[in-house]
Amino acid sequence: MIISAKTFINGDGKAVLNDAALCFEKDRIIDAGPAGDIRAKYPGHELIDYGDATILPGLIDMHVHLAYWFMRPDKEIYDDFMVAYFALNNAQRALFSGVTTVRDVFGPSGACRQLALAASRGLVRSPRIIHCNRCLCITGGLDWQSGGGSVQVDGEAEVVKAVRTEIREGAQWIKMMTSGRAQGVAEFSQAEMNAAVNEVHRLGKKIAAHSTSQPSLQMCIDAGYDTIEHGTHLTLDQAKQIRDKGIAWVPTIFIHKFIFERLVKKINESGYESLTEREQRTHWGYERSMKAYTDNFLNLADTGVTVLAGTDMVFDGENPAPVSEELKCMTDLGFDNLRAVATATSSAGKVLGMENEIGSLRPGLKADILIVKGDVSKDIGALKNVEAVYLDGKIISREI
Amino acid sequence: MIISAKTFINGDGKAVLNDAALCFEKDRIIDAGPAGDIRAKYPGHELIDYGDATILPGLIDMHVHLAYWFMRPDKEIYDDFMVAYFALNNAQRALFSGVTTVRDVFGPSGACRQLALAASRGLVRSPRIIHCNRCLCITGGLDWQSGGGSVQVDGEAEVVKAVRTEIREGAQWIKMMTSGRAQGVAEFSQAEMNAAVNEVHRLGKKIAAHSTSQPSLQMCIDAGYDTIEHGTHLTLDQAKQIRDKGIAWVPTIFIHKFIFERLVKKINESGYESLTEREQRTHWGYERSMKAYTDNFLNLADTGVTVLAGTDMVFDGENPAPVSEELKCMTDLGFDNLRAVATATSSAGKVLGMENEIGSLRPGLKADILIVKGDVSKDIGALKNVEAVYLDGKIISREI
Amino acid sequence: MIISAKTFINGDGKAVLNDAALCFEKDRIIDAGPAGDIRAKYPGHELIDYGDATILPGLIDMHVHLAYWFMRPDKEIYDDFMVAYFALNNAQRALFSGVTTVRDVFGPSGACRQLALAASRGLVRSPRIIHCNRCLCITGGLDWQSGGGSVQVDGEAEVVKAVRTEIREGAQWIKMMTSGRAQGVAEFSQAEMNAAVNEVHRLGKKIAAHSTSQPSLQMCIDAGYDTIEHGTHLTLDQAKQIRDKGIAWVPTIFIHKFIFERLVKKINESGYESLTEREQRTHWGYERSMKAYTDNFLNLADTGVTVLAGTDMVFDGENPAPVSEELKCMTDLGFDNLRAVATATSSAGKVLGMENEIGSLRPGLKADILIVKGDVSKDIGALKNVEAVYLDGKIISREI
Amino acid sequence: MIISAKTFINGDGKAVLNDAALCFEKDRIIDAGPAGDIRAKYPGHELIDYGDATILPGLIDMHVHLAYWFMRPDKEIYDDFMVAYFALNNAQRALFSGVTTVRDVFGPSGACRQLALAASRGLVRSPRIIHCNRCLCITGGLDWQSGGGSVQVDGEAEVVKAVRTEIREGAQWIKMMTSGRAQGVAEFSQAEMNAAVNEVHRLGKKIAAHSTSQPSLQMCIDAGYDTIEHGTHLTLDQAKQIRDKGIAWVPTIFIHKFIFERLVKKINESGYESLTEREQRTHWGYERSMKAYTDNFLNLADTGVTVLAGTDMVFDGENPAPVSEELKCMTDLGFDNLRAVATATSSAGKVLGMENEIGSLRPGLKADILIVKGDVSKDIGALKNVEAVYLDGKIISREI
Repeated sequence: MIISAKTFINGDGKAVLNDAALCFEKDRIIDAGPAGDIRAKYPGHELIDYGDATILPGLIDMHVHLAYWFMRPDKEIYDDFMVAYFALNNAQRALFSGVTTVRDVFGPSGACRQLALAASRGLVRSPRIIHCNRCLCITGGLDWQSGGGSVQVDGEAEVVKAVRTEIREGAQWIKMMTSGRAQGVAEFSQAEMNAAVNEVHRLGKKIAAHSTSQPSLQMCIDAGYDTIEHGTHLTLDQAKQIRDKGIAWVPTIFIHKFIFERLVKKINESGYESLTEREQRTHWGYERSMKAYTDNFLNLADTGVTVLAGTDMVFDGENPAPVSEELKCMTDLGFDNLRAVATATSSAGKVLGMENEIGSLRPGLKADILIVKGDVSKDIGALKNVEAVYLDGKIISREI
Repeated sequence: MIISAKTFINGDGKAVLNDAALCFEKDRIIDAGPAGDIRAKYPGHELIDYGDATILPGLIDMHVHLAYWFMRPDKEIYDDFMVAYFALNNAQRALFSGVTTVRDVFGPSGACRQLALAASRGLVRSPRIIHCNRCLCITGGLDWQSGGGSVQVDGEAEVVKAVRTEIREGAQWIKMMTSGRAQGVAEFSQAEMNAAVNEVHRLGKKIAAHSTSQPSLQMCIDAGYDTIEHGTHLTLDQAKQIRDKGIAWVPTIFIHKFIFERLVKKINESGYESLTEREQRTHWGYERSMKAYTDNFLNLADTGVTVLAGTDMVFDGENPAPVSEELKCMTDLGFDNLRAVATATSSAGKVLGMENEIGSLRPGLKADILIVKGDVSKDIGALKNVEAVYLDGKIISREI
Repeated sequence: MIISAKTFINGDGKAVLNDAALCFEKDRIIDAGPAGDIRAKYPGHELIDYGDATILPGLIDMHVHLAYWFMRPDKEIYDDFMVAYFALNNAQRALFSGVTTVRDVFGPSGACRQLALAASRGLVRSPRIIHCNRCLCITGGLDWQSGGGSVQVDGEAEVVKAVRTEIREGAQWIKMMTSGRAQGVAEFSQAEMNAAVNEVHRLGKKIAAHSTSQPSLQMCIDAGYDTIEHGTHLTLDQAKQIRDKGIAWVPTIFIHKFIFERLVKKINESGYESLTEREQRTHWGYERSMKAYTDNFLNLADTGVTVLAGTDMVFDGENPAPVSEELKCMTDLGFDNLRAVATATSSAGKVLGMENEIGSLRPGLKADILIVKGDVSKDIGALKNVEAVYLDGKIISREI
Repeated sequence: MIISAKTFINGDGKAVLNDAALCFEKDRIIDAGPAGDIRAKYPGHELIDYGDATILPGLIDMHVHLAYWFMRPDKEIYDDFMVAYFALNNAQRALFSGVTTVRDVFGPSGACRQLALAASRGLVRSPRIIHCNRCLCITGGLDWQSGGGSVQVDGEAEVVKAVRTEIREGAQWIKMMTSGRAQGVAEFSQAEMNAAVNEVHRLGKKIAAHSTSQPSLQMCIDAGYDTIEHGTHLTLDQAKQIRDKGIAWVPTIFIHKFIFERLVKKINESGYESLTEREQRTHWGYERSMKAYTDNFLNLADTGVTVLAGTDMVFDGENPAPVSEELKCMTDLGFDNLRAVATATSSAGKVLGMENEIGSLRPGLKADILIVKGDVSKDIGALKNVEAVYLDGKIISREI
């Protein structure tokens, strides 16, 4: 199969080609280059020219919760059957929007493993799934009530056991909640963080830290996590540290913006006093979060830290957001379009340790491809005009 | 929306029209008649002419097991998440083959209820599901080991409680296993059967009996079940009795043929001694079953008993069979094509008590419609050439 | 394979042949007759002449407890692993003594089923096993404390459920304890007995009653059990009733004699006062039992009732008794040798409903064969001089 | 009893005698020497001359899993009863092949203890059994799903408790899984390994490590285990270390060869693509394992490390391999026959701390004796021609 289009973005954050084509066989890309050359070189292949469109790697959403059912307005109907249908629905929404790989950063035990397994057996279609299974929090820590999505552990011994348990249950990453809602308080101790990071690395896996604030951000850096999720109040000095230590940053700007703007809208419509006490606290915190992203995102990124796109989708009972929204936030804050696309493609592939499988459009990699109408290099909003999605070289229909 | 085609079968077992059209709005049929009249009457509607095709009611499979995972070769991977994906896959295979309603006659508790609920919330697409939740068997009775799909009950008191329990869990029908693998033995006693039938009817529901042999067939007739499933060794006298009592018969011919022919193939290829002991017993029994269907089906049906189409799909670890296979078996045994189609349309709608909702193409009914290439009134095999399926007036895409 | 010997007893209670031979292939007897004829007719077969020996059917012990570990002196070491080794040891002792089939009349759930299954898979060698799985007793009834070998049930509903449960767990017969240690008291009520017998027969199985005394003996006869175990105090009138109803009688004389003589020996050695209170009660009762057998056995048998041999082996913590001891008791009480042999061969085969499989040496039956030195028709004690045992046509070595 | 034969190997790896004899009484060897001398010295003893045969010590298989039922193709039938019969069958196969002692290196709790106890009570016959009861693995570690054969422990405190628990349950050795399926990952941490080794030695027991790869091999050496099982990728430097520390090596070459060749056969017959994903991974790894054994075995052994024979029998659902297969592998890789025999006799006796009981044919030791046809010093294959096996001075019949 050869596909071509007017614009071709390979995901490296720099290159954009005109009138390029991609040739793939079964699930692998076998060649890419000027459309004329490719067509001449592979005369027998089926040909689709998408015209005024952009070909780019299937997107990678580094921060999702496919099975985070616990905040649904209709949560009383959920059992494992329903969680399965819910997770599948979220996975397929992501897939239809061009996301061919997700990293799920916590949910009920087994939900992601079984969805991935069902897809591998041909029962359903789903993006490829890298997951943490449940997350680790301290007793009473952030999200300890999350419909089975977290496990409460205390002390180094329990942390080590929990790391091993989640890996046994299929986790390819480990996720820890290191800061919560209390300002200025880190939930896990430094010793617990260190124990987790050491054990995860000893067992050949990677580990992500939910961390939004001080002092947990510095503690996470000291412990040596592989990714920092949110990192809302990172300082410039800390950005340099994580760059130097090879830690990647998943800022999840859009979800903050979305929730903050929803509260602002409510205030505008019904007055501040219409907010619940909890909403008032959220408003207070997210106002500061939004300021932090607005003031610092570009400066932090410009230190050279690896930035990754994550939507935190289905958080707070909402429908999933397309990863294009997160890229839009980044361009609004100063990224050029190609740099934003790299956060959801080549950079994510590298951090996942799968750079020879996904994240770019190079020969030998998986044929995970997104085609959208228009020119993404000029208009990041074009990412919403999905024309076609290929996963493992097979096209995804829109819906049943 | 107006759709038309060269052949139009309304499902009543008699009528076939040429160049007819159907007009539906949202989920309801609003008119049907000669194509020219309908087009003239509803000028503003979208129009699709399917040409050399047959329009007929969406099919009703009266005997399926969407979530019968227990005989799968890979059964060690099943938990409720996986059962959900498996049931969905089976449901969608049925839907793609033109089945818009199924009656599920047992499976793990909650599996069908939650699939139907997930479909109603828009998380997945599925045929409409009428179901029994679990089935009732005696302690150690047929299918007592069925991955949670059965409940073992003994004595009238337990039978009554189980009826109520299944209804609480969502059952619209009750299913009982009344004959098992031992020849000449009825599993439930007459008193237990009577207690079940009385309680089910008292609570306004219907009840199906698995029964293949004597004496359970006569006991089921005496008890007054609403449908007899399989009924393999029914006598002519019994057929008259069930006609007179308004009991319907779901012969499930194809599944018997399928399993028997699979064994015959194995014998032809590897010799009788290659069969396991269990396969030898099955071969012995199914040889007699096939003879019973071949010798008696038409005579039994010609008594006027209501015959319904059921595939027993996913039985024995196999992929689901399309209901068209069952209709083909009936025509092979002497039914004309329209009479066969009625077993999966109008007759089924009536037995379900849903004749004003499904099973026919009349104004006021649900727009559950199947369009296949060719003329089903002349070639029952045309049912396999699915052109389009509408469920509740919405078209079903082939797959994601 | 052709085997011959000077004496040949086919088990029918009448015939004894001289210089006869038996020819079998694989697991089946194909011919029997005068040795010269058989040798001439099957020239290619291997030949063994056992000389001054008797060929007779493999014996059938109708009353054993292979896994009755609960009265062992070292019972604290028993778990399911040890029960397995114990049951196997008992089974193999029986086999070495010429018993090729046993009916096990209760023990821990699954013990007999799994031993038979292990034998069918080739993991161990064992006589063929027909079994009751656990027995049914009333709450607190006889043997309610029997290491998991009994289930306490009360009322017709529980009796019916227990019958179904034991069948589910593999029971081919059901066993009920209908009299206990309290003189003159029947443990189950007549209604419970009737419910059990009806349900067992309805499900196509057979049912045995432990009954030693009045009124339970008459109640058992009225209920219509298939065998009465022990039946110690049966009256002549009752013997005629059970003859007329086709009930068989398993008197288990030897176990009574063995236990009584052990007590007598203790009294002779250490005085009556050396008996424990329980032993005194047993002595009192068994003295009456021995008198009953001595006075009545022959008269009862001569009514024409079917008498069967059962050893009650491993009862009371003792090693198993060979069935030859029971036959010796019968000849001591007036049976001729062939009549005694029939109780452990053809009569047992008939009561088991397996007369076309075992119990005789006729063409078509299983090659279950016992060869002992000497002439059993003249000396019942010759049964102890086992020369060879064939089970399913395969010879049994003495031990590993 | 005096037995003599043309060839006599005492198991020390060096000596081979001609026309020697052995005299034993009850379960003990009382003398050995030139046949003429022995016969003259003990005139009253029964005499068996085995002629052209080899007398050698009963073999010791240092790595078996008698009760490893979990990978059987018919695993659904296993409960403790069936595990008992399965373990017995494996034990007896070993015994018939000349193995009079096994070290069982994990299985369901109690299985080996109860088999040994049943043998000591005379219920069954079995080789003498030294065992580990269950093995220790980390949560989710190698073989955590092994039908109850493993216990998952994390952290030093749990490791110590588990050591004590297994000893309470009868373990004479402790077994730990220190490397798993992930390349380059040690499963237990160094601290956990050290804690286990210290506690085991403190309590006077010995400890075996499953270890195939780096870094776990070095960590095991540093911790000071008593035996290293498999040790597939040991380096020459590490061999010297384990020699110096008195650690013995159980290479289990044959099981690797067996599984690898089975895969190669499948590839040759049906193509590489016919392998399951798991088989492909196994093939990849075992190709490297076979190369490691082929290239390094002799060099490693020549450092002077103690090498022991272990078959890993019943691994992977296969029937047990005789230990002669392992000795054959060693001679194929450069061992002379006597040196190979020593790995299954005197060396094993010493490592078990039982050198004054088993492993040699010296006065005072147990009369565990193997006699095979032919001359094992010239033909290692002669070990398969078992003529007689004595355990504790009692001959073993071939089978029942």
